[in-house]
Amino acid sequence: MGYFYGRKVNYYETDQMGIVHHSNYIRWMEEARLSLMEDLSLSYAEMERQGLLIPVLSVSCKYRLPFRYGESFQIQLSPLHFNGIKLSLGYRIYDTEGKLHTTGESSHCFADSSMCPRSLKKSYSHIYEILQEWVLANQEDNV
Amino acid sequence: MGYFYGRKVNYYETDQMGIVHHSNYIRWMEEARLSLMEDLSLSYAEMERQGLLIPVLSVSCKYRLPFRYGESFQIQLSPLHFNGIKLSLGYRIYDTEGKLHTTGESSHCFADSSMCPRSLKKSYSHIYEILQEWVLANQEDNV
Amino acid sequence: MGYFYGRKVNYYETDQMGIVHHSNYIRWMEEARLSLMEDLSLSYAEMERQGLLIPVLSVSCKYRLPFRYGESFQIQLSPLHFNGIKLSLGYRIYDTEGKLHTTGESSHCFADSSMCPRSLKKSYSHIYEILQEWVLANQEDNV
Amino acid sequence: MGYFYGRKVNYYETDQMGIVHHSNYIRWMEEARLSLMEDLSLSYAEMERQGLLIPVLSVSCKYRLPFRYGESFQIQLSPLHFNGIKLSLGYRIYDTEGKLHTTGESSHCFADSSMCPRSLKKSYSHIYEILQEWVLANQEDNV
Repeated sequence: MGYFYGRKVNYYETDQMGIVHHSNYIRWMEEARLSLMEDLSLSYAEMERQGLLIPVLSVSCKYRLPFRYGESFQIQLSPLHFNGIKLSLGYRIYDTEGKLHTTGESSHCFADSSMCPRSLKKSYSHIYEILQEWVLANQEDNV
Repeated sequence: MGYFYGRKVNYYETDQMGIVHHSNYIRWMEEARLSLMEDLSLSYAEMERQGLLIPVLSVSCKYRLPFRYGESFQIQLSPLHFNGIKLSLGYRIYDTEGKLHTTGESSHCFADSSMCPRSLKKSYSHIYEILQEWVLANQEDNV
Repeated sequence: MGYFYGRKVNYYETDQMGIVHHSNYIRWMEEARLSLMEDLSLSYAEMERQGLLIPVLSVSCKYRLPFRYGESFQIQLSPLHFNGIKLSLGYRIYDTEGKLHTTGESSHCFADSSMCPRSLKKSYSHIYEILQEWVLANQEDNV
Repeated sequence: MGYFYGRKVNYYETDQMGIVHHSNYIRWMEEARLSLMEDLSLSYAEMERQGLLIPVLSVSCKYRLPFRYGESFQIQLSPLHFNGIKLSLGYRIYDTEGKLHTTGESSHCFADSSMCPRSLKKSYSHIYEILQEWVLANQEDNV
Protein backbone atom coordinates (compact mmCIF):
# COMPACT_ATOMS: atom_id res chain seq x y z
CA MET A 1 0.00 0.00 0.00
CA GLY A 2 1.52 3.26 -1.11
CA TYR A 3 4.95 3.92 -2.53
CA PHE A 4 8.18 3.45 -0.59
CA TYR A 5 11.27 5.62 -0.86
CA GLY A 6 14.25 5.70 1.46
CA ARG A 7 17.94 6.39 1.88
CA LYS A 8 20.58 7.15 4.48
CA VAL A 9 20.60 10.42 6.38
CA ASN A 10 23.27 12.82 5.09
CA TYR A 11 25.68 14.37 7.57
CA TYR A 12 24.96 17.89 6.30
CA GLU A 13 21.28 17.36 7.11
CA THR A 14 21.99 17.43 10.86
CA ASP A 15 22.09 20.54 13.05
CA GLN A 16 23.82 21.30 16.31
CA MET A 17 21.02 19.57 18.26
CA GLY A 18 22.61 16.41 16.87
CA ILE A 19 19.51 15.51 14.86
CA VAL A 20 18.24 16.07 11.33
CA HIS A 21 17.08 19.68 10.96
CA HIS A 22 13.29 19.76 10.72
CA SER A 23 13.32 21.60 7.37
CA ASN A 24 14.98 18.63 5.68
CA TYR A 25 11.94 16.37 6.09
CA ILE A 26 10.13 18.71 3.69
CA ARG A 27 12.92 17.98 1.19
CA TRP A 28 12.72 14.24 1.85
CA MET A 29 8.99 14.38 1.09
CA GLU A 30 9.83 16.02 -2.25
CA GLU A 31 12.40 13.33 -3.00
CA ALA A 32 9.78 10.66 -2.30
CA ARG A 33 7.06 12.11 -4.51
CA LEU A 34 9.42 12.82 -7.43
CA SER A 35 10.71 9.27 -7.11
CA LEU A 36 7.11 8.03 -7.25
CA MET A 37 6.53 10.08 -10.41
CA GLU A 38 9.54 8.50 -12.04
CA ASP A 39 8.37 5.08 -10.92
CA LEU A 40 5.10 5.80 -12.71
CA SER A 41 7.13 6.73 -15.84
CA LEU A 42 6.19 10.37 -15.31
CA SER A 43 9.52 12.18 -15.37
CA TYR A 44 9.01 15.52 -13.65
CA ALA A 45 12.15 16.87 -15.35
CA GLU A 46 10.47 16.11 -18.68
CA MET A 47 7.12 17.53 -17.53
CA GLU A 48 8.75 20.86 -16.62
CA ARG A 49 10.49 20.99 -20.00
CA GLN A 50 7.05 20.61 -21.59
CA GLY A 51 5.66 23.43 -19.46
CA LEU A 52 3.75 21.50 -16.79
CA LEU A 53 4.67 22.45 -13.21
CA ILE A 54 3.40 20.91 -9.98
CA PRO A 55 3.88 23.67 -7.38
CA VAL A 56 3.37 23.03 -3.68
CA LEU A 57 0.25 24.63 -2.17
CA SER A 58 0.85 23.50 1.41
CA VAL A 59 2.98 21.23 3.55
CA SER A 60 2.77 20.05 7.12
CA CYS A 61 4.93 17.82 9.24
CA LYS A 62 4.66 16.29 12.73
CA TYR A 63 7.92 15.29 14.39
CA ARG A 64 7.55 12.42 16.87
CA LEU A 65 11.07 11.02 16.95
CA PRO A 66 14.23 12.54 15.51
CA PHE A 67 16.51 11.00 12.89
CA ARG A 68 20.26 11.05 13.42
CA TYR A 69 23.26 10.73 11.14
CA GLY A 70 24.06 7.04 10.73
CA GLU A 71 20.40 6.11 10.39
CA SER A 72 18.24 5.52 7.32
CA PHE A 73 14.69 6.61 6.68
CA GLN A 74 11.91 4.94 4.74
CA ILE A 75 8.97 7.02 3.53
CA GLN A 76 5.55 5.51 2.84
CA LEU A 77 3.79 7.81 0.41
CA SER A 78 0.01 7.52 0.05
CA PRO A 79 -2.62 9.43 -1.90
CA LEU A 80 -5.04 11.49 0.15
CA HIS A 81 -7.02 13.26 -2.57
CA PHE A 82 -6.84 13.72 -6.34
CA ASN A 83 -9.30 15.27 -8.74
CA GLY A 84 -7.11 16.28 -11.67
CA ILE A 85 -6.85 19.84 -10.37
CA LYS A 86 -5.37 19.24 -6.95
CA LEU A 87 -3.34 16.40 -5.48
CA SER A 88 -2.83 15.72 -1.78
CA LEU A 89 -0.33 13.20 -0.46
CA GLY A 90 0.35 11.67 2.96
CA TYR A 91 3.81 10.68 4.20
CA ARG A 92 4.82 8.33 7.00
CA ILE A 93 8.53 8.32 7.70
CA TYR A 94 9.89 5.20 9.40
CA ASP A 95 13.30 4.04 10.52
CA THR A 96 14.68 0.71 9.36
CA GLU A 97 13.07 -1.09 12.29
CA GLY A 98 9.64 0.11 11.27
CA LYS A 99 9.27 2.69 14.02
CA LEU A 100 7.25 5.74 12.90
CA HIS A 101 9.26 8.96 13.34
CA THR A 102 7.41 11.59 11.34
CA THR A 103 4.16 12.12 9.48
CA GLY A 104 3.46 14.75 6.87
CA GLU A 105 1.13 15.95 4.16
CA SER A 106 1.53 18.02 1.03
CA SER A 107 -0.95 19.41 -1.46
CA HIS A 108 -0.26 20.48 -5.01
CA CYS A 109 -1.88 21.92 -8.07
CA PHE A 110 -0.92 21.68 -11.73
CA ALA A 111 0.17 24.82 -13.53
CA ASP A 112 1.71 26.06 -16.74
CA SER A 113 5.03 27.89 -16.78
CA SER A 114 3.25 31.18 -15.91
CA MET A 115 1.94 29.48 -12.75
CA CYS A 116 -1.64 29.49 -14.11
CA PRO A 117 -3.61 26.45 -12.89
CA ARG A 118 -4.26 23.72 -15.45
CA SER A 119 -6.68 20.82 -15.35
CA LEU A 120 -4.76 17.58 -15.89
CA LYS A 121 -7.90 15.87 -17.15
CA LYS A 122 -8.32 18.37 -19.98
CA SER A 123 -4.75 19.23 -20.89
CA TYR A 124 -2.72 16.18 -19.94
CA SER A 125 -5.17 13.30 -19.89
CA HIS A 126 -2.37 10.73 -20.20
CA ILE A 127 -0.80 11.98 -16.96
CA TYR A 128 -4.22 12.22 -15.31
CA GLU A 129 -4.94 8.57 -16.03
CA ILE A 130 -1.63 7.31 -14.70
CA LEU A 131 -2.00 9.31 -11.47
CA GLN A 132 -5.66 8.38 -11.10
CA GLU A 133 -4.84 4.69 -11.47
CA TRP A 134 -2.15 4.94 -8.78
CA VAL A 135 -4.48 6.87 -6.46
CA LEU A 136 -7.27 4.30 -6.81
CA ALA A 137 -4.90 1.38 -6.25
CA ASN A 138 -3.28 2.91 -3.19
CA GLN A 139 -5.96 4.91 -1.44
CA GLU A 140 -6.59 3.82 2.11
CA ASP A 141 -10.19 2.94 2.86
CA ASN A 142 -10.54 5.42 5.65
CA VAL A 143 -9.45 8.51 3.79
CA MET B 1 1.00 43.35 17.04
CA GLY B 2 3.46 40.49 16.95
CA TYR B 3 7.16 40.56 16.10
CA PHE B 4 8.53 41.50 12.69
CA TYR B 5 11.55 39.95 11.04
CA GLY B 6 12.65 40.28 7.43
CA ARG B 7 15.49 40.27 4.94
CA LYS B 8 16.25 39.85 1.26
CA VAL B 9 15.79 36.52 -0.50
CA ASN B 10 19.09 34.72 -1.10
CA TYR B 11 19.88 33.48 -4.60
CA TYR B 12 20.67 29.97 -3.36
CA GLU B 13 17.17 29.77 -1.88
CA THR B 14 15.61 29.63 -5.36
CA ASP B 15 15.00 26.47 -7.39
CA GLN B 16 14.66 25.86 -11.11
CA MET B 17 10.99 26.92 -11.02
CA GLY B 18 12.50 30.39 -10.59
CA ILE B 19 10.98 30.84 -7.12
CA VAL B 20 12.08 30.25 -3.55
CA HIS B 21 12.03 26.52 -2.79
CA HIS B 22 9.16 25.76 -0.43
CA SER B 23 11.42 24.15 2.20
CA ASN B 24 13.16 27.47 2.81
CA TYR B 25 10.09 29.11 4.32
CA ILE B 26 10.43 26.63 7.20
CA ARG B 27 13.96 28.01 7.71
CA TRP B 28 12.76 31.61 7.49
CA MET B 29 10.22 30.81 10.23
CA GLU B 30 13.10 29.55 12.41
CA GLU B 31 15.09 32.72 11.70
CA ALA B 32 12.11 34.83 12.77
CA ARG B 33 11.47 33.02 16.06
CA LEU B 34 15.15 32.93 17.06
CA SER B 35 15.36 36.64 16.26
CA LEU B 36 12.34 37.19 18.52
CA MET B 37 14.04 35.26 21.33
CA GLU B 38 17.09 37.45 21.02
CA ASP B 39 14.89 40.55 20.97
CA LEU B 40 13.43 39.33 24.27
CA SER B 41 17.01 38.99 25.60
CA LEU B 42 16.61 35.21 25.50
CA SER B 43 19.66 34.04 23.55
CA TYR B 44 18.87 30.57 22.24
CA ALA B 45 22.60 29.92 21.75
CA GLU B 46 23.02 30.53 25.48
CA MET B 47 19.95 28.44 26.36
CA GLU B 48 21.34 25.44 24.49
CA ARG B 49 24.67 25.81 26.27
CA GLN B 50 22.75 25.65 29.56
CA GLY B 51 20.94 22.51 28.45
CA LEU B 52 17.54 23.90 27.45
CA LEU B 53 16.40 22.93 23.95
CA ILE B 54 13.25 24.02 22.12
CA PRO B 55 12.66 21.27 19.55
CA VAL B 56 10.03 21.57 16.84
CA LEU B 57 6.95 19.36 17.28
CA SER B 58 5.19 20.36 14.09
CA VAL B 59 5.25 22.86 11.26
CA SER B 60 2.84 23.77 8.51
CA CYS B 61 2.94 26.24 5.67
CA LYS B 62 0.47 27.47 3.06
CA TYR B 63 1.92 28.96 -0.11
CA ARG B 64 -0.30 31.58 -1.76
CA LEU B 65 2.23 33.58 -3.76
CA PRO B 66 5.86 32.75 -4.47
CA PHE B 67 8.90 34.82 -3.54
CA ARG B 68 11.61 35.43 -6.12
CA TYR B 69 15.25 36.43 -5.94
CA GLY B 70 15.47 40.22 -5.85
CA GLU B 71 12.54 40.48 -3.42
CA SER B 72 12.47 40.86 0.36
CA PHE B 73 10.18 39.17 2.85
CA GLN B 74 8.78 40.42 6.13
CA ILE B 75 7.47 37.90 8.68
CA GLN B 76 4.86 38.80 11.26
CA LEU B 77 5.25 36.36 14.13
CA SER B 78 2.38 35.99 16.60
CA PRO B 79 1.74 33.74 19.59
CA LEU B 80 -1.00 31.14 19.17
CA HIS B 81 -0.71 29.21 22.43
CA PHE B 82 1.68 29.01 25.38
CA ASN B 83 1.37 27.18 28.67
CA GLY B 84 4.97 26.75 29.78
CA ILE B 85 5.09 23.23 28.35
CA LYS B 86 4.20 23.90 24.73
CA LEU B 87 4.47 26.98 22.55
CA SER B 88 2.65 27.53 19.25
CA LEU B 89 3.43 30.37 16.90
CA GLY B 90 1.76 31.79 13.78
CA TYR B 91 3.61 33.32 10.84
CA ARG B 92 2.40 35.65 8.11
CA ILE B 93 4.98 36.30 5.42
CA TYR B 94 4.53 39.52 3.45
CA ASP B 95 6.41 41.21 0.64
CA THR B 96 7.57 44.80 1.01
CA GLU B 97 4.28 46.11 -0.38
CA GLY B 98 2.32 44.36 2.34
CA LYS B 99 0.94 41.59 0.16
CA LEU B 100 0.52 38.30 2.04
CA HIS B 101 2.48 35.47 0.34
CA THR B 102 2.59 32.68 2.89
CA THR B 103 1.16 31.67 6.24
CA GLY B 104 2.57 29.13 8.64
CA GLU B 105 2.48 27.67 12.11
CA SER B 106 4.96 25.89 14.34
CA SER B 107 4.63 24.21 17.71
CA HIS B 108 7.42 23.50 20.15
CA CYS B 109 8.12 21.95 23.51
CA PHE B 110 10.94 22.59 25.98
CA ALA B 111 13.42 19.80 26.62
CA ASP B 112 16.72 19.04 28.30
CA SER B 113 19.72 17.85 26.32
CA SER B 114 18.40 14.25 26.45
CA MET B 115 15.23 15.50 24.71
CA CYS B 116 13.14 14.91 27.86
CA PRO B 117 10.33 17.48 28.17
CA ARG B 118 10.74 20.18 30.81
CA SER B 119 8.23 22.59 32.28
CA LEU B 120 9.50 26.14 31.78
CA LYS B 121 7.38 27.33 34.72
CA LYS B 122 9.11 24.95 37.14
CA SER B 123 12.66 24.82 35.80
CA TYR B 124 13.18 28.13 34.02
CA SER B 125 10.67 30.51 35.57
CA HIS B 126 12.61 33.55 34.35
CA ILE B 127 12.26 32.44 30.75
CA TYR B 128 8.62 31.48 31.34
CA GLU B 129 7.79 34.97 32.55
CA ILE B 130 9.45 36.73 29.64
CA LEU B 131 7.68 34.53 27.08
CA GLN B 132 4.36 34.75 28.94
CA GLU B 133 4.56 38.53 28.98
CA TRP B 134 5.21 38.63 25.23
CA VAL B 135 2.39 36.18 24.55
CA LEU B 136 -0.12 38.21 26.57
CA ALA B 137 0.93 41.46 24.94
CA ASN B 138 0.75 40.08 21.39
CA GLN B 139 -2.03 37.52 21.39
CA GLU B 140 -4.77 38.27 18.92
CA ASP B 141 -8.24 38.40 20.42
CA ASN B 142 -9.69 35.72 18.25
CA VAL B 143 -7.17 32.98 19.01
CA MET C 1 39.56 48.37 1.09
CA GLY C 2 37.12 45.94 -0.42
CA TYR C 3 33.42 45.51 0.28
CA PHE C 4 32.04 44.36 3.61
CA TYR C 5 29.03 42.12 4.13
CA GLY C 6 27.94 40.38 7.29
CA ARG C 7 25.10 38.96 9.35
CA LYS C 8 24.35 36.54 12.16
CA VAL C 9 24.85 32.81 11.74
CA ASN C 10 21.56 30.97 11.23
CA TYR C 11 20.78 27.97 13.43
CA TYR C 12 20.01 25.76 10.43
CA GLU C 13 23.51 26.43 9.10
CA THR C 14 25.07 24.36 11.90
CA ASP C 15 25.71 20.63 11.81
CA GLN C 16 26.06 18.03 14.54
CA MET C 17 29.73 19.00 15.06
CA GLY C 18 28.19 22.11 16.67
CA ILE C 19 29.70 24.41 14.05
CA VAL C 20 28.59 25.92 10.75
CA HIS C 21 28.68 23.26 8.03
CA HIS C 22 31.56 23.97 5.66
CA SER C 23 29.29 24.10 2.59
CA ASN C 24 27.52 27.18 3.95
CA TYR C 25 30.59 29.40 3.60
CA ILE C 26 30.24 28.96 -0.16
CA ARG C 27 26.71 30.35 0.18
CA TRP C 28 27.89 33.23 2.38
CA MET C 29 30.43 34.13 -0.31
CA GLU C 30 27.56 34.28 -2.82
CA GLU C 31 25.54 36.50 -0.47
CA ALA C 32 28.51 38.86 -0.18
CA ARG C 33 29.16 39.21 -3.91
CA LEU C 34 25.48 39.66 -4.80
CA SER C 35 25.25 42.29 -2.07
CA LEU C 36 28.26 44.03 -3.61
CA MET C 37 26.57 43.98 -7.02
CA GLU C 38 23.50 45.62 -5.56
CA ASP C 39 25.67 48.15 -3.78
CA LEU C 40 27.13 49.02 -7.18
CA SER C 41 23.56 49.45 -8.50
CA LEU C 42 24.00 46.27 -10.53
CA SER C 43 20.96 44.18 -9.57
CA TYR C 44 21.76 40.59 -10.45
CA ALA C 45 18.04 39.75 -10.41
CA GLU C 46 17.60 42.35 -13.14
CA MET C 47 20.69 41.15 -15.04
CA GLU C 48 19.32 37.59 -15.18
CA ARG C 49 15.98 38.87 -16.46
CA GLN C 50 17.90 40.60 -19.25
CA GLY C 51 19.74 37.39 -20.10
CA LEU C 52 23.13 38.01 -18.49
CA LEU C 53 24.27 35.24 -16.13
CA ILE C 54 27.41 35.14 -13.98
CA PRO C 55 28.03 31.42 -13.40
CA VAL C 56 30.67 30.17 -10.98
CA LEU C 57 33.75 28.61 -12.58
CA SER C 58 35.52 27.67 -9.36
CA VAL C 59 35.43 28.15 -5.62
CA SER C 60 37.86 27.38 -2.84
CA CYS C 61 37.74 27.84 0.90
CA LYS C 62 40.21 27.41 3.76
CA TYR C 63 38.76 26.85 7.20
CA ARG C 64 40.98 28.11 10.04
CA LEU C 65 38.44 28.64 12.82
CA PRO C 66 34.82 27.52 12.93
CA PHE C 67 31.77 29.74 13.32
CA ARG C 68 29.05 28.77 15.78
CA TYR C 69 25.40 29.68 16.19
CA GLY C 70 25.16 32.86 18.24
CA GLU C 71 28.07 34.46 16.38
CA SER C 72 28.14 36.89 13.47
CA PHE C 73 30.43 36.91 10.47
CA GLN C 74 31.82 39.78 8.46
CA ILE C 75 33.13 39.13 4.94
CA GLN C 76 35.74 41.35 3.29
CA LEU C 77 35.35 40.93 -0.44
CA SER C 78 38.23 42.03 -2.70
CA PRO C 79 38.88 41.85 -6.43
CA LEU C 80 41.63 39.49 -7.54
CA HIS C 81 41.35 39.70 -11.32
CA PHE C 82 38.97 41.18 -13.88
CA ASN C 83 39.27 41.50 -17.63
CA GLY C 84 35.67 41.74 -18.77
CA ILE C 85 35.59 38.04 -19.58
CA LYS C 86 36.46 36.55 -16.20
CA LEU C 87 36.17 37.89 -12.67
CA SER C 88 38.00 36.50 -9.63
CA LEU C 89 37.20 37.53 -6.08
CA GLY C 90 38.87 36.98 -2.71
CA TYR C 91 37.02 36.59 0.58
CA ARG C 92 38.21 37.01 4.16
CA ILE C 93 35.64 36.01 6.73
CA TYR C 94 36.08 37.57 10.19
CA ASP C 95 34.20 37.39 13.46
CA THR C 96 33.00 40.55 15.16
CA GLU C 97 36.28 40.88 17.03
CA GLY C 98 38.26 40.97 13.80
CA LYS C 99 39.67 37.47 14.06
CA LEU C 100 40.10 35.81 10.66
CA HIS C 101 38.17 32.50 10.47
CA THR C 102 38.06 31.61 6.80
CA THR C 103 39.49 32.67 3.46
CA GLY C 104 38.09 31.88 0.06
CA GLU C 105 38.18 32.62 -3.63
CA SER C 106 35.71 32.38 -6.46
CA SER C 107 36.03 32.89 -10.19
CA HIS C 108 33.27 33.65 -12.63
CA CYS C 109 32.55 34.25 -16.27
CA PHE C 110 29.74 36.14 -17.96
CA ALA C 111 27.28 34.18 -20.07
CA ASP C 112 23.99 34.47 -21.91
CA SER C 113 21.00 32.34 -20.94
CA SER C 114 22.34 29.44 -23.04
CA MET C 115 25.50 29.52 -20.91
CA CYS C 116 27.58 30.81 -23.83
CA PRO C 117 30.39 33.13 -22.66
CA ARG C 118 29.94 36.84 -23.32
CA SER C 119 32.42 39.68 -23.17
CA LEU C 120 31.15 42.36 -20.79
CA LYS C 121 33.24 44.99 -22.55
CA LYS C 122 31.54 44.34 -25.89
CA SER C 123 27.99 43.46 -24.87
CA TYR C 124 27.45 45.21 -21.54
CA SER C 125 29.94 48.08 -21.48
CA HIS C 126 27.98 49.91 -18.78
CA ILE C 127 28.35 46.95 -16.41
CA TYR C 128 31.99 46.52 -17.44
CA GLU C 129 32.79 50.09 -16.47
CA ILE C 130 31.12 49.90 -13.08
CA LEU C 131 32.91 46.66 -12.21
CA GLN C 132 36.23 47.90 -13.61
CA GLU C 133 35.99 51.06 -11.52
CA TRP C 134 35.35 49.04 -8.35
CA VAL C 135 38.19 46.64 -9.17
CA LEU C 136 40.69 49.47 -9.70
CA ALA C 137 39.63 51.25 -6.54
CA ASN C 138 39.81 48.13 -4.38
CA GLN C 139 42.60 46.03 -5.81
CA GLU C 140 45.35 45.25 -3.34
CA ASP C 141 48.82 46.23 -4.48
CA ASN C 142 50.27 42.79 -4.17
CA VAL C 143 47.78 40.99 -6.37
CA MET D 1 40.89 2.99 -9.15
CA GLY D 2 39.36 5.03 -6.37
CA TYR D 3 35.92 4.75 -4.84
CA PHE D 4 32.69 5.44 -6.72
CA TYR D 5 29.59 7.06 -5.29
CA GLY D 6 26.59 8.40 -7.16
CA ARG D 7 22.89 9.15 -7.13
CA LYS D 8 20.26 11.23 -8.87
CA VAL D 9 20.20 15.02 -8.61
CA ASN D 10 17.52 16.25 -6.21
CA TYR D 11 15.10 18.92 -7.39
CA TYR D 12 15.79 21.13 -4.36
CA GLU D 13 19.47 21.16 -5.33
CA THR D 14 18.75 23.32 -8.38
CA ASP D 15 18.62 27.10 -8.44
CA GLN D 16 16.88 29.57 -10.75
CA MET D 17 19.69 29.27 -13.30
CA GLY D 18 18.12 25.84 -13.94
CA ILE D 19 21.24 23.98 -12.79
CA VAL D 20 22.51 22.48 -9.54
CA HIS D 21 23.64 25.28 -7.21
CA HIS D 22 27.43 25.23 -6.94
CA SER D 23 27.40 24.88 -3.14
CA ASN D 24 25.76 21.47 -3.42
CA TYR D 25 28.82 19.87 -5.02
CA ILE D 26 30.61 20.46 -1.71
CA ARG D 27 27.84 18.41 -0.07
CA TRP D 28 28.06 15.69 -2.70
CA MET D 29 31.79 15.41 -1.99
CA GLU D 30 30.95 14.89 1.70
CA GLU D 31 28.40 12.22 0.80
CA ALA D 32 31.04 10.42 -1.26
CA ARG D 33 33.75 10.41 1.39
CA LEU D 34 31.39 9.34 4.19
CA SER D 35 30.13 6.57 1.94
CA LEU D 36 33.73 5.50 1.39
CA MET D 37 34.32 5.43 5.14
CA GLU D 38 31.33 3.18 5.60
CA ASP D 39 32.51 0.99 2.77
CA LEU D 40 35.78 0.60 4.66
CA SER D 41 33.76 -0.42 7.76
CA LEU D 42 34.67 2.92 9.35
CA SER D 43 31.32 4.34 10.43
CA TYR D 44 31.81 8.08 10.88
CA ALA D 45 28.65 8.23 13.02
CA GLU D 46 30.35 5.74 15.38
CA MET D 47 33.68 7.60 15.23
CA GLU D 48 32.02 10.85 16.32
CA ARG D 49 30.30 9.05 19.19
CA GLN D 50 33.75 7.87 20.30
CA GLY D 51 35.11 11.41 20.12
CA LEU D 52 37.01 11.32 16.83
CA LEU D 53 36.10 14.10 14.41
CA ILE D 54 37.36 14.65 10.85
CA PRO D 55 36.86 18.39 10.25
CA VAL D 56 37.35 19.95 6.83
CA LEU D 57 40.46 22.13 6.47
CA SER D 58 39.87 23.20 2.89
CA VAL D 59 37.73 22.50 -0.16
CA SER D 60 37.95 23.52 -3.77
CA CYS D 61 35.81 22.85 -6.79
CA LYS D 62 36.08 23.55 -10.51
CA TYR D 63 32.85 23.64 -12.48
CA ARG D 64 33.24 22.65 -16.13
CA LEU D 65 29.71 21.52 -17.00
CA PRO D 66 26.54 21.95 -14.96
CA PHE D 67 24.28 19.19 -13.68
CA ARG D 68 20.53 19.50 -14.10
CA TYR D 69 17.53 17.92 -12.39
CA GLY D 70 16.74 14.63 -14.12
CA GLU D 71 20.43 13.71 -14.35
CA SER D 72 22.60 11.50 -12.13
CA PHE D 73 26.14 12.07 -10.99
CA GLN D 74 28.93 9.61 -10.30
CA ILE D 75 31.87 10.68 -8.12
CA GLN D 76 35.29 9.08 -8.39
CA LEU D 77 37.04 9.63 -5.08
CA SER D 78 40.82 9.22 -4.95
CA PRO D 79 43.47 9.71 -2.25
CA LEU D 80 45.86 12.60 -2.78
CA HIS D 81 47.82 12.56 0.45
CA PHE D 82 47.66 10.80 3.84
CA ASN D 83 50.09 10.77 6.72
CA GLY D 84 47.91 9.96 9.70
CA ILE D 85 47.62 13.61 10.62
CA LYS D 86 46.13 15.04 7.45
CA LEU D 87 44.12 13.48 4.63
CA SER D 88 43.60 14.99 1.18
CA LEU D 89 41.12 13.64 -1.33
CA GLY D 90 40.43 14.28 -5.01
CA TYR D 91 37.00 14.14 -6.63
CA ARG D 92 35.99 13.77 -10.26
CA ILE D 93 32.28 14.11 -10.85
CA TYR D 94 30.95 12.46 -14.01
CA ASP D 95 27.56 12.12 -15.59
CA THR D 96 26.20 8.68 -16.50
CA GLU D 97 27.81 8.85 -19.94
CA GLY D 98 31.24 9.30 -18.42
CA LYS D 99 31.60 13.00 -19.23
CA LEU D 100 33.57 14.90 -16.61
CA HIS D 101 31.54 17.81 -15.16
CA THR D 102 33.37 18.87 -12.03
CA THR D 103 36.62 18.28 -10.17
CA GLY D 104 37.31 18.99 -6.54
CA GLU D 105 39.62 18.49 -3.62
CA SER D 106 39.21 18.44 0.13
CA SER D 107 41.69 18.21 2.98
CA HIS D 108 41.01 17.10 6.52
CA CYS D 109 42.63 16.60 9.87
CA PHE D 110 41.69 14.34 12.75
CA ALA D 111 40.56 15.93 15.99
CA ASP D 112 39.02 15.15 19.35
CA SER D 113 35.69 16.64 20.39
CA SER D 114 37.44 19.84 21.52
CA MET D 115 38.75 20.21 17.96
CA CYS D 116 42.33 19.49 19.09
CA PRO D 117 44.33 17.67 16.40
CA ARG D 118 45.03 13.98 16.98
CA SER D 119 47.45 11.65 15.27
CA LEU D 120 45.56 8.66 13.91
CA LYS D 121 48.71 6.55 14.01
CA LYS D 122 49.13 7.03 17.75
CA SER D 123 45.56 7.20 18.98
CA TYR D 124 43.54 5.21 16.46
CA SER D 125 46.01 2.85 14.82
CA HIS D 126 43.24 0.53 13.63
CA ILE D 127 41.65 3.36 11.66
CA TYR D 128 45.06 4.50 10.43
CA GLU D 129 45.81 1.10 8.98
CA ILE D 130 42.50 0.79 7.16
CA LEU D 131 42.86 4.24 5.61
CA GLN D 132 46.52 3.70 4.80
CA GLU D 133 45.72 0.45 3.03
CA TRP D 134 43.03 2.14 0.93
CA VAL D 135 45.34 5.04 0.11
CA LEU D 136 48.15 2.75 -1.05
CA ALA D 137 45.81 0.63 -3.14
CA ASN D 138 44.17 3.61 -4.84
CA GLN D 139 46.84 6.26 -5.16
CA GLU D 140 47.49 7.35 -8.69
CA ASP D 141 51.09 7.06 -9.81
CA ASN D 142 51.50 10.67 -10.71
CA VAL D 143 50.39 12.13 -7.38
